[in-house]
Amino acid sequence: MAIQKPPGVQDILPGSVERWQYVEQVARDICRRFNFKEIRTPMFEMTELFQRGVGETTDIVEKEMYTFTDRGGRSITLRPEGTAGVVRAYVENKLYGDPDLSKLYYIGPMFRYERQQAGRYRQFHQFGVEAIGSDDPALDAEVIALGYAFYQEVGLKGVRVELNSVGTPAIREAFRGKLLAYLEPKRELLCKDCQSRMKRNPLRVLDCKVDQRHFADAPSILDSLDEACAGHFERVKGHLADMGIPFEINHRLVRGLDYYTNTAFEYKAEGIGAIDTIGGGGRYNGLVSSISAEDRPGVGLAIGLERTVLLLEQQRAEGDGPGLDVYLVGLGEAAERETVKLLHALREAGLSADRDYQGRKLKAQMKSADRLRASYTAILGDDELARGEIALKTMATGEQRFVKLERLAAEIKGIES
Amino acid sequence: MAIQKPPGVQDILPGSVERWQYVEQVARDICRRFNFKEIRTPMFEMTELFQRGVGETTDIVEKEMYTFTDRGGRSITLRPEGTAGVVRAYVENKLYGDPDLSKLYYIGPMFRYERQQAGRYRQFHQFGVEAIGSDDPALDAEVIALGYAFYQEVGLKGVRVELNSVGTPAIREAFRGKLLAYLEPKRELLCKDCQSRMKRNPLRVLDCKVDQRHFADAPSILDSLDEACAGHFERVKGHLADMGIPFEINHRLVRGLDYYTNTAFEYKAEGIGAIDTIGGGGRYNGLVSSISAEDRPGVGLAIGLERTVLLLEQQRAEGDGPGLDVYLVGLGEAAERETVKLLHALREAGLSADRDYQGRKLKAQMKSADRLRASYTAILGDDELARGEIALKTMATGEQRFVKLERLAAEIKGIES
Repeated sequence: MAIQKPPGVQDILPGSVERWQYVEQVARDICRRFNFKEIRTPMFEMTELFQRGVGETTDIVEKEMYTFTDRGGRSITLRPEGTAGVVRAYVENKLYGDPDLSKLYYIGPMFRYERQQAGRYRQFHQFGVEAIGSDDPALDAEVIALGYAFYQEVGLKGVRVELNSVGTPAIREAFRGKLLAYLEPKRELLCKDCQSRMKRNPLRVLDCKVDQRHFADAPSILDSLDEACAGHFERVKGHLADMGIPFEINHRLVRGLDYYTNTAFEYKAEGIGAIDTIGGGGRYNGLVSSISAEDRPGVGLAIGLERTVLLLEQQRAEGDGPGLDVYLVGLGEAAERETVKLLHALREAGLSADRDYQGRKLKAQMKSADRLRASYTAILGDDELARGEIALKTMATGEQRFVKLERLAAEIKGIES
Repeated sequence: MAIQKPPGVQDILPGSVERWQYVEQVARDICRRFNFKEIRTPMFEMTELFQRGVGETTDIVEKEMYTFTDRGGRSITLRPEGTAGVVRAYVENKLYGDPDLSKLYYIGPMFRYERQQAGRYRQFHQFGVEAIGSDDPALDAEVIALGYAFYQEVGLKGVRVELNSVGTPAIREAFRGKLLAYLEPKRELLCKDCQSRMKRNPLRVLDCKVDQRHFADAPSILDSLDEACAGHFERVKGHLADMGIPFEINHRLVRGLDYYTNTAFEYKAEGIGAIDTIGGGGRYNGLVSSISAEDRPGVGLAIGLERTVLLLEQQRAEGDGPGLDVYLVGLGEAAERETVKLLHALREAGLSADRDYQGRKLKAQMKSADRLRASYTAILGDDELARGEIALKTMATGEQRFVKLERLAAEIKGIES
């Protein structure tokens, strides 16, 4: 029996991988322009990092982590999200000693043992940015603008920004009381998930898709903000308006992680029917101090790449990446041997080139050249080899001519330029 | 106490990450030219895959794997190498149904719980290629040439190719008897590792660094090859010579994994003192059938990126990547707010641009611009803003002039082109 991959993970194969490469290239270019630098943290961390940095009572930590004991007896966990590791690396490598702000980005796999369902993977991929070291509302706006620019350049249409402020832990604590007083009489009407959320994190109840009809007159956390938080929120909104980033206020928006303060935001897009959250983030002034003795403000976002790639597939047909420059055919023993050398010379000249390795007939090789979308086919027979020439065929026009072997790369590059 | 990363893994930070990006970019470009397409397989696989595809008696499987039980009770293992997963994906996704050969490459993390030592990481990174579906010796030569071209373009000097043929399992079995007869009388002279290797895999004894002096007259597996294997080897050597790839025969070269047949090769470079293996590969005609009901020949290589990046650092000073295009300074409240908008417009125009988010004085901001190696600094005061202008300074010359706000991006791009 053939061994298969574990359930819930995927192979990304040629034909799809080009879409991933494209999306990642856009992310890198956006980060260059916004002056964010790449950071790469390990795929696994000490389990305690996520318990403290994500929150012990979150679904992620309670139910979804790939946690195990390594050969040295340590409890380690495959990273379920990117922020905790980046903040850990920021502190451990003393990046706070830099006079400039740390503006960091990452692209890579994350791991959550989720119930299997369409579009959810146990290894999934995120692009995220973290800006650590400043409390300036202009930075919140910059991060939101970066994500918005990413979606625009990837070519995803109809992306909306939803914005909220979740204040400080003290403000949330006070609001929690108000909210519970509002929810308590409705308890029996609510879904099971909400009844359980009322105990653990009542703010998330308002975000429930099932129970929205009961919450029309729910209190808004925005009415509970103090002056500093309200001022911060106003400035974020002002900068977004200045930059021309469209956004809507959603006072029910609460991110799933415990460490957010002030700004919280999400990107939404029309998926298969429903409106889906395709990315989001917020300010997390309490996170650095929750995992270290340092205390620095920060703001970041994370964007799920599976969703982005999927929506992109639905919205437009991407090409399969560039075709081959030259497909080389050798006819006869000496000519065939010569193609190996010639092929290497073409590649050294920067061209993409290939040949047959399966001993196929000319006709099958020409079909292969078509599948590879070769711009040129170059055919070498023993006679041509004796004359030091090769037949070069332009696939688009069918035109064929003989060129000197040593001129082959130059001819192809010349024709192309 | 601050939480630290697990022992044996590393953070790759801005300042070093540029070298990684560069090396990966070279790998991708080489693969484009050689017509290899990227494949991405999961970070973990069913444990059985590596037991069957790497070999139960290898050090990797016996001692070094990150194996654990997931929440569904499956034994899964973080991938310790790349080939088994690619071959599994090749079979599971029926790539053998494609009329063309599968030429695949991967770049990414691998995991082995190794004893901690300098330059060895428990999460390390490999670039590898796998060509599955052909037994043509020209394909072995192509793969060897690809790796050699990679090192050349990365700029690594003094890389040597060592080449051997390890025949077929039957040939190795026969040679094993000859070799043991030769080694037996020397048993007492050999190091402990070799004494243990004599039982498990005597071919690897000849590769021992400690005991080389005892092996001057050891038998060569090349003398045991049958006609088919000898012919294959001759053709690989011929193609390499045609392509101008320098190589040396090393009949003691045996790769650590069980599944190689015919061609085995390594790349060596002078590291810190000693000559180190920095990559290698070979033909593995028995691998596909060892993990599935299919039977296809294949050949591949794997290159350790940690070593490549390290040697690159020693051999030449890489830059820190490109500098910033524009650093924006706002002086005064209205001007400062305007910079957020202006910054976004510059970025939308494709320029890399940044500003201060820490409320620093002009002098500190100018130092920041220097650290970021900004080509231009643009300074906006409230007076200039009222006139709709901004002061643009070319950092290399110190020259400064006023430009219209709406012309800023165009001016900078115009000057640069």
